[in-house]
Amino acid sequence: MNTILAKDHFMQTYVSVDCVVFGFDNTQLNVLLVERNTQLPRLRDLKLPGSLIYQHENADEAAHRVLNELTGIKKITLKQFKSFTSPERTRNPDDIGWLEFAYSNRIDRLITISYLSLCKINRRLNNVSKYQSVEWCPVNELPTMPFDHNQIVEESLEEIRRWVEFDPAIVFELLPSKFTESELRKLYEAIYRKELDVRNFHKRISGIKYIVPLEERQTKVAHRAARLFKFDKILYNKRMTTIE
Amino acid sequence: MNTILAKDHFMQTYVSVDCVVFGFDNTQLNVLLVERNTQLPRLRDLKLPGSLIYQHENADEAAHRVLNELTGIKKITLKQFKSFTSPERTRNPDDIGWLEFAYSNRIDRLITISYLSLCKINRRLNNVSKYQSVEWCPVNELPTMPFDHNQIVEESLEEIRRWVEFDPAIVFELLPSKFTESELRKLYEAIYRKELDVRNFHKRISGIKYIVPLEERQTKVAHRAARLFKFDKILYNKRMTTIE
Repeated sequence: MNTILAKDHFMQTYVSVDCVVFGFDNTQLNVLLVERNTQLPRLRDLKLPGSLIYQHENADEAAHRVLNELTGIKKITLKQFKSFTSPERTRNPDDIGWLEFAYSNRIDRLITISYLSLCKINRRLNNVSKYQSVEWCPVNELPTMPFDHNQIVEESLEEIRRWVEFDPAIVFELLPSKFTESELRKLYEAIYRKELDVRNFHKRISGIKYIVPLEERQTKVAHRAARLFKFDKILYNKRMTTIE
Repeated sequence: MNTILAKDHFMQTYVSVDCVVFGFDNTQLNVLLVERNTQLPRLRDLKLPGSLIYQHENADEAAHRVLNELTGIKKITLKQFKSFTSPERTRNPDDIGWLEFAYSNRIDRLITISYLSLCKINRRLNNVSKYQSVEWCPVNELPTMPFDHNQIVEESLEEIRRWVEFDPAIVFELLPSKFTESELRKLYEAIYRKELDVRNFHKRISGIKYIVPLEERQTKVAHRAARLFKFDKILYNKRMTTIE
């Protein structure tokens, strides 16, 4: 067994962070992607924003740095959700070529720690990163991305579902501060990837105290203006939890 | 910024797995610890079982290997829960000394991916690992462990609480297949680290369909034999989830 622990077997392992930032545009979920900055023309494709972890920082700090450089947002809620460690994730020579171009190092193996974030999509993005462009891409129309980035997005969607079950408040980070019932339903439909019955959904929502109907209605809409709601964090924190 | 990406800054980063295995002894939660195998007498102390990730395996495979060598159990439910990445975690020269002794490599930085597992404590442990001994230690009486292993156990307890909220069935992995209401309550008390009111707990449990009272009672007890219960997985899977 000890033979596979020989000196050079662990030498070129690097650790990165990758960030999956979700935004909701009232119809579907979008993911924030960046364009790789390279002189290799074949590799001008889209990927998740990320970086190797620098010497003096931990993974949380690296992820915050990446998103701060990309969006200008200082305080963004980031949740570490999974490490992707397959030796196969650097199987594509193009990906390794790009890595070695970007970091001027020989890299055999790259383990990445992925982070999840939810963001209001109308937020202005102030990109000062190494990436030449940043854009929102609908999760249902993602291109084929390098490494295992498609798989990371897929698993992060499952993670959001778990997160919502545990802490239903997080969906409101994806909505404007005042929203309609229809917007909330479409967000749930996007997260769970299934259509929800309008009347059943209305019944459920009406029973939830922390989703508060306002006296206001939508403005500037062609159809009949719908009632607006807000999320009440104080009422939310007062609700019963499972066992305590 | 690019100066800190110079060649030698990422060179000695290694990635390991560490496993937090919980067992419940009818009174308190215990964690499976191993004794470090070293010729350095000062370092004969206890730690979480772990290993560097080998070249051809991913982190899940490494964690299964560690626990298989330690317990002989082939199928054990393991949940990856967090990467610990602080540059400070290898600050203690003793820890680095042990690592370099164990792996015959120069190691500057060690990132670890932690795993969580729940185990029936009366299971026989069949240790064929590099560790010379393995033992259960009550979570409230843990020694000071190397690296950030105390912190890892602390955070894994928080993770169990989130896990129970999301999937209440997991507590039954810590109990014998037939258990009393008092054993279940003591397990919840150990997980939540607080006393629960006996009558309120009884009321809650009575309302949960998948906790099924049996006709059987305890045997070989000094006090009045209590009724036994079992967990019904089929009824559990039929219960409603939050939104679907």
